[in-house]
Parts: sequence; structure tokens; C-alpha cells
Amino acid sequence: MTITDFVGAQPFSAVLRSHAESTGSAVCVGVDPRPAAHPLTSPEAHGHDPVAVARSVAAYAKAVLDATHDVVACCKPQAAFFEALGLPGLEALADVIAHARSLGLPLILDAKRGDIGSTAEAYADAYLTDGAFAADALTVNPFLGIDTLEPFIAAASTNHRGLFVLVRTSNPGSAGLQELELTSGSLLYQNLAGRLTERAVTLGTDEHGYSLLGAVGGATAPEQLADLRRLLPRSLLLVPGYGAQGGSADDVTHAFDADGWGAVVNSSRGIMYSPAGQDATSLAEVGESARTAALAARQDLRDALGRRG
Amino acid sequence: MTITDFVGAQPFSAVLRSHAESTGSAVCVGVDPRPAAHPLTSPEAHGHDPVAVARSVAAYAKAVLDATHDVVACCKPQAAFFEALGLPGLEALADVIAHARSLGLPLILDAKRGDIGSTAEAYADAYLTDGAFAADALTVNPFLGIDTLEPFIAAASTNHRGLFVLVRTSNPGSAGLQELELTSGSLLYQNLAGRLTERAVTLGTDEHGYSLLGAVGGATAPEQLADLRRLLPRSLLLVPGYGAQGGSADDVTHAFDADGWGAVVNSSRGIMYSPAGQDATSLAEVGESARTAALAARQDLRDALGRRG
Repeated sequence: MTITDFVGAQPFSAVLRSHAESTGSAVCVGVDPRPAAHPLTSPEAHGHDPVAVARSVAAYAKAVLDATHDVVACCKPQAAFFEALGLPGLEALADVIAHARSLGLPLILDAKRGDIGSTAEAYADAYLTDGAFAADALTVNPFLGIDTLEPFIAAASTNHRGLFVLVRTSNPGSAGLQELELTSGSLLYQNLAGRLTERAVTLGTDEHGYSLLGAVGGATAPEQLADLRRLLPRSLLLVPGYGAQGGSADDVTHAFDADGWGAVVNSSRGIMYSPAGQDATSLAEVGESARTAALAARQDLRDALGRRG
Repeated sequence: MTITDFVGAQPFSAVLRSHAESTGSAVCVGVDPRPAAHPLTSPEAHGHDPVAVARSVAAYAKAVLDATHDVVACCKPQAAFFEALGLPGLEALADVIAHARSLGLPLILDAKRGDIGSTAEAYADAYLTDGAFAADALTVNPFLGIDTLEPFIAAASTNHRGLFVLVRTSNPGSAGLQELELTSGSLLYQNLAGRLTERAVTLGTDEHGYSLLGAVGGATAPEQLADLRRLLPRSLLLVPGYGAQGGSADDVTHAFDADGWGAVVNSSRGIMYSPAGQDATSLAEVGESARTAALAARQDLRDALGRRG
């Protein structure tokens, strides 16, 4: 398996755009496996055997990807839920990553890593090269300083991968830190966005003007999302918080550029654990309900972008 | 294996203090395995077999812990270096964690996790309960908001574990974000420190006044370290940046309280890959050189605290 088997020779932003175009979808299906959230993966159903639970979680996630990969732009496994299952959980993560690769589905690993110097290099080695955890793109945390993003940028650039830097997240308390007012006149997240754009102008862009340096902007703060779209012209936006967390399709339209591109909108629980799928007694039924939910999300976003005009 | 086998019924801050007292040491031995950094673990020496390399790394790290556990306060594996080795690397991490537990050596997992809501809960499940990756304490990133620390605080409180929140890190570019000036009159890291202390006053403390909510303050910024000591009276400080990164023993004395407690000082490369150990041809020799380096660091800190008076 070489790097090009996974992402091809194109930059990540172009690969993502291509898949979004071919599926007609800006939906990112979030893979947040919670064993207790479905009877097919519950610890009780597997005799509380950690290996069996993790394997059932991988099978469930793969069924969701099988059923949705042609109607979503990408997928986003959340590392935390796999790490919580211990070593068998990390085997499940590797399995899911390999499966997304086999489907040709772009994969953003939501691991929110961030560290300094050679430690950041080690994280970049883990997630932006060609090992078992290699993703097309990685979410990263900028708190340790913009300079600490450099090892991630270097690895992403070399290997045609992407980054999504946390800038304004979707949780209720995010404003408490990310919107602190600076004496320079801007809010913290605005300062950060400005500096990311300064950095992005020195990076290459695809034909639509997007670089490898994306950003995370929460659906639950639509005004700030519009601000991010303006401040980050060279950054694709990954938008969590749609659906279960309260962000509406109209809210997330602010993340898109005038051409209706520039963002992917994540839905985790809404697709993976849709209400209709709760009664599913087979992975085929799980897949059906996930596909129905992914199609509904795709249409919801299309309708909202249509209303925006 | 139950939780109490690992940390005992005492709060983490008291366990750490007890081990620091019995070893007469405020040194934290950092476990940052870089296979290429030593002939005994190099990929070439193991036919580039990932499993063999990871096992050699675990054996090397365990030899370092065996030889130093009675002269250091604690150890701090850096998750990134294990993650970079893929699944075999994570097996090595579990092995190192189990070994530290068997030695009775307090272990801080440096994973710098941070996320929102139920995702933060999943990280807390992974690292602050009783699975293969269970640590005595975890480093966490506050960028997503102080509220996002709550699941970590809850798990640490229930299970008698500790947290070290990133506040002012040791890298050259940390000031670019952590020292942004706020309209409130303080710098970002000061604002954060103040709010952590507000939170800590609602938590229990040990007999020395320390809570489960520690902080990370870099040795390379001694004035800011003194500031943190003042702003965070209920927080143990984890101090990276001593030695290889440029912080001196005199610099780090600012992290200690009037009683000479309140901080542990990390040394990674200086102990694990000391110059004297580069020629070691056996794990016994690796251990000897690590012990010599750990004893020198212990004395260096003692001398500096003595000069401070």
C-alpha cells in the first residue's frame, strides 16, 4: 500500500471536492462508535468481551460506510471513541480506515492532536503518512502556538493530505476562550484565523483556491461561521454541530463560498445512530437507515443552499 | 486489576508527593521512545519489523524505569511516540504503563487530549479509568473551553487521578498564542490560570493544599513559571523544557512553592538517551546510564532549590 493508493496525486482539497461533486453531497458522516448506543454492538450482546465489542463496532461502522459512501463527501472517525475501547478499539480504527480507503471515501481523522517540535512530528508520522492510522486529513489543535502546526503542514504537504485546525468549535463553552477580546481589537478566534490565512497564502492551492490548511468552525455559531468563511478564504471548513448538537442547515450555509463549495458538514449520531436504525436487527438494516439519514442530510443542505441563492 | 491497585485510595497529588518524598526527587522521567535514537531499538537492528521495533522500544523503556523508579518522582510517557509506531506501538504503551504500575511509579500520560462533551468523556474513559491505557494523570488541552475539562475532572475525581492542563508551554512559539493580550488586562495564559484556580477552589485538596487540577508550565519561560506558581496555588505544576530544551535548574525553581514542593520537572532525552548511554550494548547498561542521568538531574534540582533558599 503506497500513499498514492489512498489519496492519489491530487491535493486533499481537490480529492474532497471531487468526491463531493460526484456524490452531490457536502455531508461528512461522523463515525463515533458508542457500543451501548445500538443493540448490535452493546457490551451485553457480546458477553462484555472487549475484543468482540470492538469487532462489532468496526463491522457496524463499515456497514454505515458501505451504505453511505456514494452519497456523502467524506467520513470522519472520532479517535476518542476508538481509544476508549483500548487496543481492540484501535484495531477497529485501523480496520475502518482501511475500509474507507478501499471504498475510495476521503477520511478525516478527528483526533485533535497538537504538540511541539519532534512530538508533533511523531503525531504527523502516525496520522499523515502511510501506517495503519493514516488518514486523508487530520484535525489539529493550535493552542501550543501556530509554529507547532509546521510539522503537520510539512507532512500534509509532502503526502498530499489535509489539516483542519480548530478555530471556533461547536460546544457551548467555546466562546469562553475562543472569543476572548484581544487588545488588538479582534477576538481570539479571529486572530487565529488571520494568522492561518497568512500561513496559507504561502502554501499552494487547488484550482478552486483552497490550500491544505482547513479549519473547524461549529454550526452552532452561525455568525462566527460567516466570519470564518470571510477570514479564511483559502481554507476548507469542517463544520461540526449540525443536527444533534443544534445547528440547522440554514446555519451552516454560512460556511460555504459563493460557488456553494468550501465546506463539509458533519453529522455523526444523526446518521450512524438515526432513530429509524435503533430497531435494526442486521447490519444491512443499519446500513439502510444510515443511507436514508445521509440522503436526508444531503437534501437538507441542498435545500438550505438553494434558499440562500 | 482494580483502580486502587494502581493509585491507591489517596488523591493523585498525595501519591505523587509521597513518591517524590521517598525518592527525594522532583524529577519526572520522560518516556519518549524514538527507535532511531539508540542502536538497541533502531529499525535496522530489528529488520524493520514494526512489531520487533515496538517490542524493543518497550523493553528499553522498561529498563529505564527499572533503573530509575527509586530516584524519580514519576514517569511521563509521551503518547505521540507510541502512536507513531502504530498498533504495535500502542501495545508497547500498554506494556510500559503496566510496568510502571508494577513498580509503584506514578505515571503521567502526556497525550494532550481535549474535546467536547461525550467525546471528552470517551478520552477520560480511555485514560482515567482502568483499561490498558489507564494513567495516574493525563495532560489535557483547554483550547475548546474550560467547560470541556469537566468530563476529565469528573473521571479524575471519581478515580483519584490527576490532570495537568496546558497553560504556558515550553516551545518558542507558545507566547504567540498563550501570551496574547486581553482587553481585561491580562495575558491569555493568565486568564486561563485564573479560571483554573476558580475551578480548583471547588475541588478537594490534599494536606498540602493541592487539588487534582494541575497545570503545565514550561521551564523555558521562568518569569511566566513564577507567575503560574502564584496564580495556581492549588495546582501541581508539570514542567517540561528542562535540559535538552534549554531550561536550567535555576529556571525551574520558580515552579516550586515555599516548601520546595508543588512541581515535578520532566527530563526526557537527558535521561532516556543520555550521551553516556549512546554506547550501551545491553539494557543493563542503558539502565545504568539512565540512573546516572536521573541522579544528576535530582542533584541539579536540589542544588538549585538550595541556592534559592
